Amino acid sequence: MMEDSNLLENLNLHVSVDCVVFGFEFGKLNVLLIERNMQFEGKEYHDLKLPGDLVRKDEDLDTAASRVLSELTGLDKIYLKQYAAIGSPGRLKRQARDMEWLRSIAHPEEIVVTVAYYSLINIDQDKAANFTLQENARWYKISDVQELAFDHISILQQALNTLRNDLKSRPIAYELLPPKFTLGQLQQLHEVILGSELDKRNFRKKVANMPYILPVNEKQVDVSHKPARFYSFHPRIYEKTNKISF
Amino acid sequence: MMEDSNLLENLNLHVSVDCVVFGFEFGKLNVLLIERNMQFEGKEYHDLKLPGDLVRKDEDLDTAASRVLSELTGLDKIYLKQYAAIGSPGRLKRQARDMEWLRSIAHPEEIVVTVAYYSLINIDQDKAANFTLQENARWYKISDVQELAFDHISILQQALNTLRNDLKSRPIAYELLPPKFTLGQLQQLHEVILGSELDKRNFRKKVANMPYILPVNEKQVDVSHKPARFYSFHPRIYEKTNKISF
Repeated sequence: MMEDSNLLENLNLHVSVDCVVFGFEFGKLNVLLIERNMQFEGKEYHDLKLPGDLVRKDEDLDTAASRVLSELTGLDKIYLKQYAAIGSPGRLKRQARDMEWLRSIAHPEEIVVTVAYYSLINIDQDKAANFTLQENARWYKISDVQELAFDHISILQQALNTLRNDLKSRPIAYELLPPKFTLGQLQQLHEVILGSELDKRNFRKKVANMPYILPVNEKQVDVSHKPARFYSFHPRIYEKTNKISF
Repeated sequence: MMEDSNLLENLNLHVSVDCVVFGFEFGKLNVLLIERNMQFEGKEYHDLKLPGDLVRKDEDLDTAASRVLSELTGLDKIYLKQYAAIGSPGRLKRQARDMEWLRSIAHPEEIVVTVAYYSLINIDQDKAANFTLQENARWYKISDVQELAFDHISILQQALNTLRNDLKSRPIAYELLPPKFTLGQLQQLHEVILGSELDKRNFRKKVANMPYILPVNEKQVDVSHKPARFYSFHPRIYEKTNKISF
């Protein structure tokens, strides 16, 4: 709220949402990006950006983010987590081609404050649910993404940091795994999201200290190696034991 | 970003920051609120709101929040944590008197997306640092705050939930305590912030499991009761032992 300023003409900002959609597959972590095709300095130019849109007056921020995601994927009920609002002046003006692109789509060139969301999709599960991407959208392996339009690379990096912290402090791993999983699968999931290899002995020692991960009386079948035992996640035990509370 | 819409006239939002400044004192948790004096339906009307302002084009969100706080308190280097962006249509229009007030200060009546920050001040320490409040600002005991302008009561409640979670997962308690503290002080701090009494035996059992809280070879002096031992917080041990990581 502003009490005593005549600077109103200086206060006309726009608000957008940007969505970092992580797609988990065994073996890799992907992110959903939009291909941007444009003329720049007389040549064809292609690059990538995060999916996003300006927020409309009749919708709240979460609704805008859900709309972007559902237009993009056809998926409706994906959990989106708001993790930051970013509004540095000049965030859209870092590169000449970004400014030219904004003009070409009649986008306001003023400051856009963006509210960033991330979500995590299990690509295999959602393929089964008839997941279809908009024409210009595609999955890219996280480690291959080097450059994005505007300040989107730093928005992506912030999302990745948030996801990695959340993986350590909330039970999101088990939403991505089948109900029965091996410790090898659990470790691989952590390695894929954290982006680094983990020591197997250490990993198993930590899992042994998690009372909410319990063995199932069942082993892998039809595998060429020694069959591994299955485990499952017990949300009620997690609720009881994992709360750090006084 | 918007690719293909002619809805620009429908996209003109404003952005504000709102600051929830918690003030910790032994025995209670306060929040800094602004008294709003207005005419409403022909009568004098007084109520309370959170400190905040519209974001200017030449500043980023964190800068705007710091500016609000420094204008309000004279304090410059207070840690502010961004915890939410809130933009429901109609959030400023819940009460007729709020609309009248916006008109009276020539505030845009359009949607304002607000970015919310919280900070935590030790009132006693900052008194020593020559803490002076703006005329219409005052500390209110959290438990006494029942109603605020606009949707500020829900912004305050969200800040309080974030603060309580942060107290459990980050070492903020020790920023509010003197370098040497008794376990009684540590328990009271938790009770004041969490808003509920804690069982002493249980509390001490949990503290005994925290390798980063160690006794100091020193006891209280000049107290009428049995002098309590002092403890201190060891950030380096905390860093090593408290990371939940694989």
